[in-house]
Amino acid sequence: MKQLAVLKEENRRLNAILHVAQSLQSELDTKKLMFKIMDEIKNILGADRCSVFLVDFDTKELWSLVAQGMKDFEIRFPMEKGIAGHVATTGEILNIPDAYADPRFNPEIDKKTGYKTDNILTMPMKNQNGEIIGVFQVLNKKSGPFTEEDEEIIEAISHIAATAVENALLYDEQVIALESFIEMLSNILDKRDYITAGHSWRVTHYALEIGKLLKLSEDEMEKLRIAGLLHDIGKIGIPEKILFKDSKLTDEEYKEIQNHAQLTAEILSSIRFQRKFKEIPLWASSHHEKINGKGYPKGIKGDEIPIGGKILAVADVFDALTSKRQYRDRDPLEKVLTIIQKELNETFDPYIFYAFLRLNGKDVITIMENQNADKFDKKELDILKNKTLGEIFTLIHFKEEMLDEEDKKYLEIYYKYYWQKYD
Amino acid sequence: MKQLAVLKEENRRLNAILHVAQSLQSELDTKKLMFKIMDEIKNILGADRCSVFLVDFDTKELWSLVAQGMKDFEIRFPMEKGIAGHVATTGEILNIPDAYADPRFNPEIDKKTGYKTDNILTMPMKNQNGEIIGVFQVLNKKSGPFTEEDEEIIEAISHIAATAVENALLYDEQVIALESFIEMLSNILDKRDYITAGHSWRVTHYALEIGKLLKLSEDEMEKLRIAGLLHDIGKIGIPEKILFKDSKLTDEEYKEIQNHAQLTAEILSSIRFQRKFKEIPLWASSHHEKINGKGYPKGIKGDEIPIGGKILAVADVFDALTSKRQYRDRDPLEKVLTIIQKELNETFDPYIFYAFLRLNGKDVITIMENQNADKFDKKELDILKNKTLGEIFTLIHFKEEMLDEEDKKYLEIYYKYYWQKYD
Repeated sequence: MKQLAVLKEENRRLNAILHVAQSLQSELDTKKLMFKIMDEIKNILGADRCSVFLVDFDTKELWSLVAQGMKDFEIRFPMEKGIAGHVATTGEILNIPDAYADPRFNPEIDKKTGYKTDNILTMPMKNQNGEIIGVFQVLNKKSGPFTEEDEEIIEAISHIAATAVENALLYDEQVIALESFIEMLSNILDKRDYITAGHSWRVTHYALEIGKLLKLSEDEMEKLRIAGLLHDIGKIGIPEKILFKDSKLTDEEYKEIQNHAQLTAEILSSIRFQRKFKEIPLWASSHHEKINGKGYPKGIKGDEIPIGGKILAVADVFDALTSKRQYRDRDPLEKVLTIIQKELNETFDPYIFYAFLRLNGKDVITIMENQNADKFDKKELDILKNKTLGEIFTLIHFKEEMLDEEDKKYLEIYYKYYWQKYD
Repeated sequence: MKQLAVLKEENRRLNAILHVAQSLQSELDTKKLMFKIMDEIKNILGADRCSVFLVDFDTKELWSLVAQGMKDFEIRFPMEKGIAGHVATTGEILNIPDAYADPRFNPEIDKKTGYKTDNILTMPMKNQNGEIIGVFQVLNKKSGPFTEEDEEIIEAISHIAATAVENALLYDEQVIALESFIEMLSNILDKRDYITAGHSWRVTHYALEIGKLLKLSEDEMEKLRIAGLLHDIGKIGIPEKILFKDSKLTDEEYKEIQNHAQLTAEILSSIRFQRKFKEIPLWASSHHEKINGKGYPKGIKGDEIPIGGKILAVADVFDALTSKRQYRDRDPLEKVLTIIQKELNETFDPYIFYAFLRLNGKDVITIMENQNADKFDKKELDILKNKTLGEIFTLIHFKEEMLDEEDKKYLEIYYKYYWQKYD
């Protein structure tokens, strides 16, 4: 009968480990994965807390994530520090049944946090090559000190967790490489065209603020970001002598410049974007389409224009009109918005424009004067947060005697930043 | 006692499934993963064969991989075809104990391949959302027809395999997106500079052939490929009026052109490449360094120059000298190689140059005249394979009466392709 009980227990354990394997395997996001590992181990061992520390081989540090409310933050320390560091560097298992009776335990942390540590199990996380890539630290098992069986369970989960972590880190590396590549290219575009320096970046950030107000999904926001950063990539195919011509363009040259939208479509279509990003070439290349169908490159109209294209159209024209050019200052906001408003239902989608008007003054100025953000007065910027672009547009039209003190103060700060000259 | 046997069997099964989970989880390469799944299932069920078919949701097909000798090839068919198609579309399990007694079995395939199918188990592969993403087809269990227990085992593996497949496909998507992005950018560079059109592509392919002869690792080959495709990305920062100037460059302008190597380093350093690709910015930007330390941008010398930089230096100069320019044909091969040879130990590393001389005539011509590859005579190209660049270099210097018929024939074909004008 004893054998039966042992087998039952063993089966229970195997089932639990298999469950953990399936749960961890399905998570490619490193942060979510780390919280999942901590959670699964806490539950399977019936402990109060579990931390997972990963080795950063570049900096020789251990790092972990701590959840606090809705946010999480990273903690880091040198790889050999503390109990976790000892385990990470030696591979030893530390099973401490009574923390306060053990000299290796540092009670200072408890003092700071108000937590009372009873027992600790700290074990290395080893990958399939036997390399230590992290550390599990489990605290306060509810039914008393950690047993040898608990150690065995973690040992069985160790490989699974390590492989899941390595997969997630590799996936992260790929995502980050592609993102930084896109940003690098957008930067090059923004620098090459010195007349509109920083244009793609600003258009992208106006567009993302609009997207946020329209409650786009996470994937749609990412599509919008990439489409915005690369919406003018077609300009790379336009000779500089046309792009930067001082004098009036010939009809021929004007057509060549217009051709950039079509080139954007072609260039981006040659990228084998992930399935969820397939619409990016269309979004990016339709920022000169018009609601009435008289735009380019395709001449599509109304709802044939994807939402990303409509958002970029508003962001693009707003940036063009509020950009400082070589020989002139930016246009006044009321003129800019009036120009766009006149084109509603012809060029621009009112739904997008009115969402845009809901951007607050702080966000608009921060994007518009991005390269001078370090010279802003934080307090003044926070005041600018209190009104939207639409409200500012209205206020500007009021006679001064109709404004209360708060409005006057607001407009004063707004004008200061809108017209400020930096050197 | 019966309970004991059941528990033992259950235990054995759980251990086997856990083993499969760990094995599949660690593979992010879709192809290798598919073979691993087929192998694991074949073994765990004691069957003779196992195929895995995956659903291609874009084309509505099922596809699989078949190993043949050292290579593997893809097979594809419409998603509803055959037993696998039936299972993929209905989600039904088909356990056929006697294939030839079952009307759903198509004996034509056995007739073609000479295989004799006895029993078949075909089951859907479902992901964690219950979607069918593929089909397992297991053939000829050695100990007789498949049992209900076999079905249970596959069912348990199904989720694990599906998640592993989905992870691998997502990872593939990321890798492909980044690769196509790099190629797109390289294409743009190659097109912008119409004087040297196709330069980056050719340099990359010469470099890869050298790398193959030097037996570089898979990762090093990939580094070389990316570094080659982007080695001139710094030119994107040089104004076209300098880059394409017809007349002689001023010293100032020449310096600006030389600055492209430094710009390449800066631009590529802004990309957060995967850890294994960290050297790419250095490889790409050191193609104008010289062995004697008199190159640029850093003036490093000898072994301070990474192997990738040395390879690209030889490939780069070879392409520059063998490129057709607007007003002149390419230089004769003997002149080109003599120029490079004179610079051995000063500019170029002899180790790399002599490896380069081992490229065969077919590979050199195929890269050099890549845009005309469709006009090549396959037979003639195959003859060009028989001699290396080094041998051609020697042959050219022979007097005609010293050449045998085969040599003459070879040189005739070589000259034809080297000097051929296409329209």
